[in-house]
Amino acid sequence: MEYSSINLQEKLSKFSEHWSPKIIAQLNDYHLKLAKVQGEFVWHDHPETDEVFIVVNGSLDILFRDGKVSLQAGEMFVVPKGVEHKPVAENECHILLIEPAGTVNTGDVKDNLTAPNDVWI
Amino acid sequence: MEYSSINLQEKLSKFSEHWSPKIIAQLNDYHLKLAKVQGEFVWHDHPETDEVFIVVNGSLDILFRDGKVSLQAGEMFVVPKGVEHKPVAENECHILLIEPAGTVNTGDVKDNLTAPNDVWI
Repeated sequence: MEYSSINLQEKLSKFSEHWSPKIIAQLNDYHLKLAKVQGEFVWHDHPETDEVFIVVNGSLDILFRDGKVSLQAGEMFVVPKGVEHKPVAENECHILLIEPAGTVNTGDVKDNLTAPNDVWI
Repeated sequence: MEYSSINLQEKLSKFSEHWSPKIIAQLNDYHLKLAKVQGEFVWHDHPETDEVFIVVNGSLDILFRDGKVSLQAGEMFVVPKGVEHKPVAENECHILLIEPAGTVNTGDVKDNLTAPNDVWI
């Protein structure tokens, strides 16, 4: 039988809201999630886990209390667990996140940007 | 300070050998690895873990005992743990693998394609 691939652009075409990661695959107890982001997110950290950001389309800055990293499409960064960070995108940017299943986008911070952590597309 | 992004194409420019994954990042106890592949790999499975394949450049077929999946650049697949698979690429293909640190490319199979599992670039 022919199994189906997971096409990132096709999955991205299925939603439009910002800062609301959608699960596209599971690797053991980790999720791979696509998100569309624009503007400034909230300062937060993930005390229990590292978090992978891979930029698929556009560009993203991740601010830290002591600096920042600038990512273009085809670039990635691992935010270490417990490190406060604030993603910022001047224009709409599409990212692939990899983190343990159940990770909340705003970490321990409750904010109006806090999104469900269990939505598959 | 300005932190450094990890650029996939720049990392790919640093090696040329086939079927020899290179670690580019660590996420908790998982590794993200780039590999260049061409031709037929060996049938194997990973009894303890799922394995993510993301095609960065080119195209890849992953054969299973009961079928296959065809992946183009920008497409991905998760091979479930314990499922025998055989990656095949007619032309050189560049892939990003995500799997637990220490995973061996040929699983439990010893083959002349078995590669070191601890090489960073």
